[in-house]
Amino acid sequence: MTSHKISNADQIPDAAVFSQIRAQVLPKIRPSDAERTKLEAVKAELLETICKTAEMFGEDDIVPISVGSAERSTWLSGNHDIDLFVSYPEDVSRQDMETRSRRLLMEVAKSGDSWEDRHSEHPYIHITKGGFEVDLVPCFRVKSASDIKSAVDRTPFHCCFIKERIPGKQDDVLLLKQFMKSSGVYGSEVRNGGFSGYLTELLVIWYGSFEDVLKNAASWRFGQTIDIMGHQTLAHEDPLVVIDPTDPKRNVAAALSLTRFAQFINAAQRYMKNPSAEFFVKKEYAPLPVAEFKNIMKKRGTEWVGVAFDAPQKADDTLYPQLFRLENSLGEILTVNDFAVMNTHAFAGDKCIILVELMSRMLPPLQRRVGPPVWAADNAQSFYGKYKDADETFTLKIKNEYLVAEIVRKYQTAESLIADKILKEAALGRHVRAAVSDGYQIIGLDEICQIQDPAFWKWMNEKLTKQI
Amino acid sequence: MTSHKISNADQIPDAAVFSQIRAQVLPKIRPSDAERTKLEAVKAELLETICKTAEMFGEDDIVPISVGSAERSTWLSGNHDIDLFVSYPEDVSRQDMETRSRRLLMEVAKSGDSWEDRHSEHPYIHITKGGFEVDLVPCFRVKSASDIKSAVDRTPFHCCFIKERIPGKQDDVLLLKQFMKSSGVYGSEVRNGGFSGYLTELLVIWYGSFEDVLKNAASWRFGQTIDIMGHQTLAHEDPLVVIDPTDPKRNVAAALSLTRFAQFINAAQRYMKNPSAEFFVKKEYAPLPVAEFKNIMKKRGTEWVGVAFDAPQKADDTLYPQLFRLENSLGEILTVNDFAVMNTHAFAGDKCIILVELMSRMLPPLQRRVGPPVWAADNAQSFYGKYKDADETFTLKIKNEYLVAEIVRKYQTAESLIADKILKEAALGRHVRAAVSDGYQIIGLDEICQIQDPAFWKWMNEKLTKQI
Repeated sequence: MTSHKISNADQIPDAAVFSQIRAQVLPKIRPSDAERTKLEAVKAELLETICKTAEMFGEDDIVPISVGSAERSTWLSGNHDIDLFVSYPEDVSRQDMETRSRRLLMEVAKSGDSWEDRHSEHPYIHITKGGFEVDLVPCFRVKSASDIKSAVDRTPFHCCFIKERIPGKQDDVLLLKQFMKSSGVYGSEVRNGGFSGYLTELLVIWYGSFEDVLKNAASWRFGQTIDIMGHQTLAHEDPLVVIDPTDPKRNVAAALSLTRFAQFINAAQRYMKNPSAEFFVKKEYAPLPVAEFKNIMKKRGTEWVGVAFDAPQKADDTLYPQLFRLENSLGEILTVNDFAVMNTHAFAGDKCIILVELMSRMLPPLQRRVGPPVWAADNAQSFYGKYKDADETFTLKIKNEYLVAEIVRKYQTAESLIADKILKEAALGRHVRAAVSDGYQIIGLDEICQIQDPAFWKWMNEKLTKQI
Repeated sequence: MTSHKISNADQIPDAAVFSQIRAQVLPKIRPSDAERTKLEAVKAELLETICKTAEMFGEDDIVPISVGSAERSTWLSGNHDIDLFVSYPEDVSRQDMETRSRRLLMEVAKSGDSWEDRHSEHPYIHITKGGFEVDLVPCFRVKSASDIKSAVDRTPFHCCFIKERIPGKQDDVLLLKQFMKSSGVYGSEVRNGGFSGYLTELLVIWYGSFEDVLKNAASWRFGQTIDIMGHQTLAHEDPLVVIDPTDPKRNVAAALSLTRFAQFINAAQRYMKNPSAEFFVKKEYAPLPVAEFKNIMKKRGTEWVGVAFDAPQKADDTLYPQLFRLENSLGEILTVNDFAVMNTHAFAGDKCIILVELMSRMLPPLQRRVGPPVWAADNAQSFYGKYKDADETFTLKIKNEYLVAEIVRKYQTAESLIADKILKEAALGRHVRAAVSDGYQIIGLDEICQIQDPAFWKWMNEKLTKQI
């Protein structure tokens, strides 16, 4: 928190400017009639298939529900996602529900063009059909969203809440989603840590319009709280707190990272100052040619150290938290050992690649080790005993209240440090530990230059050239 | 402060061990009878000269007073200091006192072998006579030490307090002074920041003996307070607080640095654990040969940057505070600009030399500049405006709540940084500023190797090899 004056709301551009931008942007992001018709047809067909299949299996207690942006007309043109939930009575056991839903949904999946067995917290089936990406998700039909048996049971309540309030504001949701996409803050998957679709819809409902969301977001600060139903029951330590209208205990924005929160605030400030259709165009990064990469690194003058290993075959939401922990952990290990860390990055393709950009991968032999304060007499004595007249000791002195030894540094290169510490001290989640234990490579500039994956080079281009 | 257990007092060596050490050390540090007789003779002769000279000038209101360790038999053999004060009545004006004392003391000085006009807070005359260093100091004869007209007026009160209480404990004072000298913590001049003679005497009076001072000092912590007269009236934020028995407002240990305080505690702990006569032998450092210096620097792998300029002709107590400020200031300027500072040093000979030891005198071009948090909207906007699409900008991003620019570093060498900042931003006291403004040289390893002053190379030897 700071005491700086917020003045961005001082001069809000003319309403006509906003109207003009809306008129310019909306036709590009609003689904066409043909798109809508096709989506409705696929959705209807699948709902009918679900009903017929249930009937075939004699399952008369299930209810298929269409949820998600497709159901509330808040989907961006080109986004072809359909979410269909199949709800079971609350008193069905989880085991029975999983067995029954699997039989049902696998049969339904046959009507798709392809299918895939997926699971996050619980299993679901993903199919493609007529160019649409369809999730078929079993859930429980609970009485209220605060009484759920599985995380997905909330979704029908969310859908219901939005459908009742969003009519007339769908365009505002589309504008907000596109604005967030272009700013890199849309998408609540762990890898991204941005805003979810439901969250954008709640913001539009609360503030009234796209422009009002931005006008207000421009002066948000850490801890900004929105409680539409005025029913909050728990304190939340998150950058943004949006109490779920269907569950007083839950913060809809719990997965929003501080960085994404701040990026949105900054983008909102800039938009309110100089609104333009440019804010709705997402910058694409081409794969960075290796020669250009080498050239940039020469200009930066920094050095890379990293670790590469085979990517565990896990969903992104499982894998990325583990990669981020390893990324942070390697950064900390290097920092604690006097390496000057400029950036850390994590990439997952066929290989997982953790990269740390350093001022230098080499340090001089001299290391300054600050010991205990003299009044911790036992510790001071053992520090003294360890370094006094030791081969590795240059000097042993007292500075302020601390014993200080100047000694020969054990890890003079970042590579030797990581090789020694990665399995012993780095924070390794279960799947990443298994993968690293199976084998890893310590990499530097030369090894990075040999990476072929174009996705890696697009990603690297963004890391090295992005300007908000 | 820490919660570590202090256990050094658990097992105190046998009294016989201490006696043996005393018997071994005292003959070396106690002045011989011949030394004493000579000192008394010189002292008596000078006192007589003062009285006769005063009579000659018709000054019948002055009183000469012998103060200092020479007066209370707490001087170490070989230390040939005599302090003679000439006191004037309190109602004499400062101006008159200075004029009269100058006439008087200049006349007295003629009986010396050489003389020098000196001043700290106020002027005094320093003479040598018969191998003794004599300070002739004018002061006011005030009613109490808490009512002084100049800082030196306290000294007669101190002398009086000690003389009454020290008989029988002089050997303990000699042992404590010698122990402190060997540990490098004796001497309260600003350059050293250690214990004064008066302070050591008070410690012996308070704790009773040399060994009891050390036994207790071994478990001192920051803020240790000793108030012999139980008359403290002010709070002091110093490592050691010893309330002046002659002035309740004053901390006798106010000039003691945290480092010297801690060094004494540590030495006391080690002595109480393994007492030996070795603790009373001061390690002397020979001048470090340049070839050996180069060899050590190669092993350390670090680099030097420094500043050299002609030493202002000022007393150490005036010069050193200014040198230390510049030393700290250069260290901070380098640190803030990403240079990894290992050590800073200040030396004064014919030249003043400030040295900073760095991991590297060069940094890569990439600099990471962390800007304001996004919610400081005006500042964020101006940071954005400054770096967006600037020639020097690599990237401009948001990380957590902050705008972060990766830019081309302005100061890629420590030399260029210091050259640009020393006169503009470094903390320069009056005399050091004048000297640096007259001209300075930025130095590195090669220039250091050309320094001829043996005192510098003794000092450097200690910096690079000292082990407590």
